[in-house]
Amino acid sequence: MMMRQEKKGTGKQNESKMDKLRNDTNMENKYSIILGNLGNTCDRFCKGYKNNPSSEEMLEMAVKKIPFIEGIELVGTWDIRPDNVKEMKKRFMDYGIACASIIPDTFTVKEYGKGSLTSTNRNIRTSTMDYLREMSDVALEMDCKIVNLWMGQDGYDYLLTADYDQEREWLREATTALAKAYPTLRFALEYKPKEPRNFSYHARMADTILAAKETGCPNVGVTIDTGHSFAGGENVAEAVVLAKRAGDSLFHMHFNDNHGSWDDDMIVSSVHFTCYIELMFWLKKTGYGGWLSMDQYPYREDAIDAISESIHWVKKYEQIAEEHCNEIEELIKLNDAVETSRFLRRLFS
Amino acid sequence: MMMRQEKKGTGKQNESKMDKLRNDTNMENKYSIILGNLGNTCDRFCKGYKNNPSSEEMLEMAVKKIPFIEGIELVGTWDIRPDNVKEMKKRFMDYGIACASIIPDTFTVKEYGKGSLTSTNRNIRTSTMDYLREMSDVALEMDCKIVNLWMGQDGYDYLLTADYDQEREWLREATTALAKAYPTLRFALEYKPKEPRNFSYHARMADTILAAKETGCPNVGVTIDTGHSFAGGENVAEAVVLAKRAGDSLFHMHFNDNHGSWDDDMIVSSVHFTCYIELMFWLKKTGYGGWLSMDQYPYREDAIDAISESIHWVKKYEQIAEEHCNEIEELIKLNDAVETSRFLRRLFS
Amino acid sequence: MMMRQEKKGTGKQNESKMDKLRNDTNMENKYSIILGNLGNTCDRFCKGYKNNPSSEEMLEMAVKKIPFIEGIELVGTWDIRPDNVKEMKKRFMDYGIACASIIPDTFTVKEYGKGSLTSTNRNIRTSTMDYLREMSDVALEMDCKIVNLWMGQDGYDYLLTADYDQEREWLREATTALAKAYPTLRFALEYKPKEPRNFSYHARMADTILAAKETGCPNVGVTIDTGHSFAGGENVAEAVVLAKRAGDSLFHMHFNDNHGSWDDDMIVSSVHFTCYIELMFWLKKTGYGGWLSMDQYPYREDAIDAISESIHWVKKYEQIAEEHCNEIEELIKLNDAVETSRFLRRLFS
Amino acid sequence: MMMRQEKKGTGKQNESKMDKLRNDTNMENKYSIILGNLGNTCDRFCKGYKNNPSSEEMLEMAVKKIPFIEGIELVGTWDIRPDNVKEMKKRFMDYGIACASIIPDTFTVKEYGKGSLTSTNRNIRTSTMDYLREMSDVALEMDCKIVNLWMGQDGYDYLLTADYDQEREWLREATTALAKAYPTLRFALEYKPKEPRNFSYHARMADTILAAKETGCPNVGVTIDTGHSFAGGENVAEAVVLAKRAGDSLFHMHFNDNHGSWDDDMIVSSVHFTCYIELMFWLKKTGYGGWLSMDQYPYREDAIDAISESIHWVKKYEQIAEEHCNEIEELIKLNDAVETSRFLRRLFS
Repeated sequence: MMMRQEKKGTGKQNESKMDKLRNDTNMENKYSIILGNLGNTCDRFCKGYKNNPSSEEMLEMAVKKIPFIEGIELVGTWDIRPDNVKEMKKRFMDYGIACASIIPDTFTVKEYGKGSLTSTNRNIRTSTMDYLREMSDVALEMDCKIVNLWMGQDGYDYLLTADYDQEREWLREATTALAKAYPTLRFALEYKPKEPRNFSYHARMADTILAAKETGCPNVGVTIDTGHSFAGGENVAEAVVLAKRAGDSLFHMHFNDNHGSWDDDMIVSSVHFTCYIELMFWLKKTGYGGWLSMDQYPYREDAIDAISESIHWVKKYEQIAEEHCNEIEELIKLNDAVETSRFLRRLFS
Repeated sequence: MMMRQEKKGTGKQNESKMDKLRNDTNMENKYSIILGNLGNTCDRFCKGYKNNPSSEEMLEMAVKKIPFIEGIELVGTWDIRPDNVKEMKKRFMDYGIACASIIPDTFTVKEYGKGSLTSTNRNIRTSTMDYLREMSDVALEMDCKIVNLWMGQDGYDYLLTADYDQEREWLREATTALAKAYPTLRFALEYKPKEPRNFSYHARMADTILAAKETGCPNVGVTIDTGHSFAGGENVAEAVVLAKRAGDSLFHMHFNDNHGSWDDDMIVSSVHFTCYIELMFWLKKTGYGGWLSMDQYPYREDAIDAISESIHWVKKYEQIAEEHCNEIEELIKLNDAVETSRFLRRLFS
Repeated sequence: MMMRQEKKGTGKQNESKMDKLRNDTNMENKYSIILGNLGNTCDRFCKGYKNNPSSEEMLEMAVKKIPFIEGIELVGTWDIRPDNVKEMKKRFMDYGIACASIIPDTFTVKEYGKGSLTSTNRNIRTSTMDYLREMSDVALEMDCKIVNLWMGQDGYDYLLTADYDQEREWLREATTALAKAYPTLRFALEYKPKEPRNFSYHARMADTILAAKETGCPNVGVTIDTGHSFAGGENVAEAVVLAKRAGDSLFHMHFNDNHGSWDDDMIVSSVHFTCYIELMFWLKKTGYGGWLSMDQYPYREDAIDAISESIHWVKKYEQIAEEHCNEIEELIKLNDAVETSRFLRRLFS
Repeated sequence: MMMRQEKKGTGKQNESKMDKLRNDTNMENKYSIILGNLGNTCDRFCKGYKNNPSSEEMLEMAVKKIPFIEGIELVGTWDIRPDNVKEMKKRFMDYGIACASIIPDTFTVKEYGKGSLTSTNRNIRTSTMDYLREMSDVALEMDCKIVNLWMGQDGYDYLLTADYDQEREWLREATTALAKAYPTLRFALEYKPKEPRNFSYHARMADTILAAKETGCPNVGVTIDTGHSFAGGENVAEAVVLAKRAGDSLFHMHFNDNHGSWDDDMIVSSVHFTCYIELMFWLKKTGYGGWLSMDQYPYREDAIDAISESIHWVKKYEQIAEEHCNEIEELIKLNDAVETSRFLRRLFS
């Protein structure tokens, strides 16, 4: 399977470290984090709850302090640009860590405030494409296989203010052009129902599959962010199945938790529990072999600690899904909520 | 376009009445109601807030008292069965009214409580298919073009109790078999995020398009129920565009309103306003030519009056979209919430 | 504290059984269930997913099969009426079980469909009061201390159709009159944001405290149903604190779980986890000494098994709160999400 | 009534302008805006969608360009401080405009990130009180009667990380001390269910009434922000009634709109319609005589235009409530959703 091969191909330089980890834990998936999660946090009211270390400082912290990670996701412009890609690549090699994904930054840029690839202004659309090509080149140079496209500004706020058909068409054209220009990269569309726009074009799993399929390109797929899925009213495990049925369309995974109605970006398992077990089971069952990446926004928490907690939780859930795989397989055939509840209780000592 | 031809083909017997209506109002779409909306209402606590007239009494009431309707949707088993289809057809002809759709009843049947087409019990799946074929025959006999499949029991309640992939596969197989067996009928999958199950397989527009596309049959499409769309967190006008882009997949429309988080099944425009204008605009712009059918659940209201109110509201919104079509076209190009607000204010005297 | 004394006073006849249980588990709280949870289930579509045993049969099943329960809640009219109260009392004594609460049924009665105590029809209001007095007499006769008032029909569906001030005034007057007439009973107002009405007058903890306080009667308080609290967007543990601060206003507890947006009435801990630990901690910390009663609606599950599961879960959470009480006390002083996460992880083996 | 007298007392210097407006429109209420709404907008991703004019520039823009306003709300620290209060007062007098409220800024300050009045750090609590006293002095100096306390950081993010009872007690003590120290000012607690914290202590109308009542001070009341109310799942008109029943506790009003689940801070009536009519009716019926203030966050819109739109909408709704007052009075007695719907339809030409 493609994803399996990809894993084999990644980061020869640090094979020994990876192999050691694999042997320790028997795990199938590789863990990573988004570097920027270690930086400053803010909201629309408060400009900063923390200080903002440099990307290099955050990288060192991540590698030295966060357990089990084999990869780092870099946000375009902030962490990586054509001007620092060579140096960054060397750092990654020295640390024996892979570049799990490049996340082009179209969401913090004022000019893209009313849309990047879907702006009604042709110049904005063109400049976005130029930027995305630049970031795809950076990905190639970093030996990074995933470009994670979170098109956060591509959506709308008010009813009766957008031509959904036209804007979706621009989105399709641009995604297609990009995917065709970089056939060895995988473009993972990260969906989210809202924020920063009141409605996003890539809102939930199914519409994002439709957007990916419209391109006709097999290297366009989907990123699940667990919290985006919760806030979208989906059952995240079912989203995994939808992606599988649409032809192995799940390319990437971001983990966090929230209280259900908003992307609170919290430590995994702060609120939910059962859904993570189900998620890990279906990731395994559908043969997902990509990254398990943490994506939090630790507004007021120590970032290293908060992200490490999430990794410990995901590993725990992975282990449960691994050890109880056959039992869960039987439970989902049984279709009996009582038996499922009994199983869940047994997980507590 | 298929839908346009279909309209021409419907109900020759009452052409004069229809033409008169068309001339009166210049309307493109035909109005209908679901017959059962006139009957008893209940909830899980109270078995009945009203009396339950016979289908024949409700039909007479509908035809005589509800304005503008040219069609009636019949719920299978309750209103129509092989044993009364001939008599019912005669009544429809006598009243000069069309059968807008047949809605097979899989949702009130105890045996289908844990799924009909997706039951883990093969016998249940088979009996559901037999029933759906029976209802498709009834549709043919009624000269009805739409079989509205609201598979309300096909979903799940608890996490870790269902094999989503297997159950979706059963759903795909059955839908495909049905669509192939009845190529002149259009099977419209009505989506709803939850109720009666905590999660439905046909939950929102995009996943239902995926389910329709999985069949490979052009006569499988989607029904929008506005309230289901609201409760699902969609923008309903955007759902219309998704269906258009997926190849004219919108087959049928149900109208009602709610407070946003649940299928309250209220009178149109009780709560919302702007979204109906946008919806009518996009129905027009995408060339929707199907029925505009009212689907309410007037728990404690006079049913005839409550449904008539919805028709008056939808007509008002249709008229606004018709008269201001060019203006709205410009607004959605402008992408300026202030101009949109000014337009909306002008609609009030 | 009043609640503690009440516990001592309850059901001398079955002290030995209770004491045994207490010694086994060291528990402070008593467990109970609502009898009707064992009966038929339905929704607005399907009239019945199950058969409907008699109250007597359900009582026998409950006592013989459900673990740890010392009390049973009876729904008025269905389970208990003036005509069977003597016989029912004898059964309870024979079984050595207490009547945990009487739940007058105003919610299944057609005549109360547009309100019972808040109906605009004076006769309906009067007949509701007569019924509530009858049920309070029944409570006295059953040696039952709690009348659980879930005024499900008292609310409204549509905007601009109700005089909130007048209807709340009727609600206040009636509740006051009842509380004054039965000073030895505790009237526990059970809140729920919606269903069967789109808006309930007793919607969340804080507004229900206001409604209780308006009566000026110390024997009017509040019932928390955990699922109602989740669906209302509250944090249920904080609701316990609100009730404490308002003067020990929490009179009764109903347990279940849901997916967050609706009263799915599921097995405890099917979805959530952390919030139950926090809830049990705060119940203990605020000195709650009332019943821990299960209130589910096992639509498609074996009722005995599903309710037993909930009891096992609540006991597990009670035990966690008990054993880790000091640790949790320190955590809530620490105000550090990472430490809380570490604590939660340690609860898994 | 106090509010009526307050109105008479406000801003003698600009009586002629006010009187003219009153005669033009027969309006009871005065309109205002929050000055900062005209400034830069940002979110947690993008630092700025706009430029940030000075308070003085915004003030001039507001007075010259926004229709009907008689007052301006100033955010503490940003717009007004002890060092500029004299100069600002002169500007207000010169413009003939009143200071509608002072909104102390505790929400943009990094040090208050884990709570201001409810911080577990005593020094933070003390410094917050010092600041609130400073701002109350500023209010006195500005002849401003309302201090609008939006304690945005006072709440919590994670379960099991906060001592709700202790923190609410600190909140009560501080609010009480402030209210007693400034008996001629009205402290209006602005509630919001979440953001920036995942849970706010002042979350909805009823709990905020409880918080106000706990102080025992008649000069502590509540601010409704319509969008906060929508996002909290309340019906805003019923919230007005709750405040009335609690003893004229509604002190201040902020207007905006949203899509229902989040504080989108949009132009009034972008989404909703009926609820504004009902709100204006109940404001009138309960004798509200305070400010009608616009509080938006025009992320990507021209601020002057977007806020002016809201004013036009509120005025339209005020006019509807005024002109149809008796009709609405009858409708809410009738309790008939159909009649209400007919009334609403008549409002469209």
